Amino acid sequence: MRDAEQPAAMTAPADLQLFALRGMPRIGTGDDIAAELLHALQRSGLALVDGDIIAIAQKIVSKAEGRAVRLADVEPSARARELGTKTGKDPRLVELILRESVEIVRRRGGVLITRTRLGFVQANAGIDQSNVDGGGQVLLLPVDPDASAARMRSEIAVRSGRRVGILVIDSMNRPWRLGTTGAVIGCSGVRVLDDRRGSPDLYGRRLEVTVSNPADGLAAAANLLMGEADEGVPAVLIRGVPSGDETQIARDIVRPLEDDLFR
Amino acid sequence: MRDAEQPAAMTAPADLQLFALRGMPRIGTGDDIAAELLHALQRSGLALVDGDIIAIAQKIVSKAEGRAVRLADVEPSARARELGTKTGKDPRLVELILRESVEIVRRRGGVLITRTRLGFVQANAGIDQSNVDGGGQVLLLPVDPDASAARMRSEIAVRSGRRVGILVIDSMNRPWRLGTTGAVIGCSGVRVLDDRRGSPDLYGRRLEVTVSNPADGLAAAANLLMGEADEGVPAVLIRGVPSGDETQIARDIVRPLEDDLFR
Repeated sequence: MRDAEQPAAMTAPADLQLFALRGMPRIGTGDDIAAELLHALQRSGLALVDGDIIAIAQKIVSKAEGRAVRLADVEPSARARELGTKTGKDPRLVELILRESVEIVRRRGGVLITRTRLGFVQANAGIDQSNVDGGGQVLLLPVDPDASAARMRSEIAVRSGRRVGILVIDSMNRPWRLGTTGAVIGCSGVRVLDDRRGSPDLYGRRLEVTVSNPADGLAAAANLLMGEADEGVPAVLIRGVPSGDETQIARDIVRPLEDDLFR
Repeated sequence: MRDAEQPAAMTAPADLQLFALRGMPRIGTGDDIAAELLHALQRSGLALVDGDIIAIAQKIVSKAEGRAVRLADVEPSARARELGTKTGKDPRLVELILRESVEIVRRRGGVLITRTRLGFVQANAGIDQSNVDGGGQVLLLPVDPDASAARMRSEIAVRSGRRVGILVIDSMNRPWRLGTTGAVIGCSGVRVLDDRRGSPDLYGRRLEVTVSNPADGLAAAANLLMGEADEGVPAVLIRGVPSGDETQIARDIVRPLEDDLFR
């Protein structure tokens, strides 16, 4: 019973809550991420509610989908050998970068920035060289992260009865600003672009450039809890931004090439 | 008293919580943002704790610092007139953009992307044309948002006895990816760059490119609650990422020009 002198707890509920999903097992090829997510939620004492969003690290999606590649199995092309020499990178890694890319956006020194098959611009085509089980392996991005997200969303709906949104996220470097932030590469059931260009502002003036990207905002937030050097937090539950039954996908984020001033 | 059959509430506390600070008054020149923040926190039933971070929309910082400019008071230079014709922008606005910038990074059609005096690359030098009290006014960025953040942090420490971190944030467009996200332009007492390049990963391999930017991640998260078209939420309380007594500032985010592949 409370002391009469003590005021009741006044803290309002948070508008946005993020829960790190700890204790998931190390994911390997063929593992069922949706099932592991539901187990991890249960162990954490978290009951899903409709509208929750789960952000999932690209790395475990790639691993589950068997996207690890042994460099020893890669035969570099002549072009990959040449670029390998120029960049100081393993030519077999360069070969994979080229296969995963549709365009080299920039190369200088050891930096190789490409547009991936998915349309996103990332260093090294998003290929991950860390935390991949020994033996000279690297990890490619999922083949179709939007489809991966939709599949996991559907599996979670079937098993839990809950309509959640799914984000597959990756850490990315950016022009002009140091330090990686999280960004979305796959998405299902989450508002990706919020177009408010038609809305008048407080003074009745039409807003100028006001398409926001809530999906990337959520990815950046979730990424804060994931860290880089360990796989302890491969997924984050986000509560407070209703996911809704959105039909947008991550590829909708790709800026049309004709509007791209930085190719 | 609980029913014996009913399990105790199992929900773990969120690892990261964001609270929208609603009901702040409209801010004008000379207003004391630190005082208004503390009032808003009190009205919301939120007691600050050491390590909390408050993200503040650039717009109210600029307004408090008297950075609204009446276009009627601006005399455009010949260069501003020429660029105004090329971009279809008001030459007086272009004049302000040029004064606020050290470099035009890209111009095409009506898009003008510049490097501001602060070093950040933004459309229109970060000048805001929306939600500025009528009369053909626009709003420039704060002169020194890092100093603004440090001042507010210090004022909050004096008045509340709490050590908090302060972020001054803005919505920015980005190359390649559609939709704005929040990013930091001013900062005090928050970890800006988290350099983990020295840490071995799970397999003992040195991590490659793993400088993350938690400050921008927090800004992107807070920006989700702010929206664009109203000033109802000009500040967000963030709890769960200890701010610490960091000495980094937002300008530390500026990628060195010699490493900038997108000038």
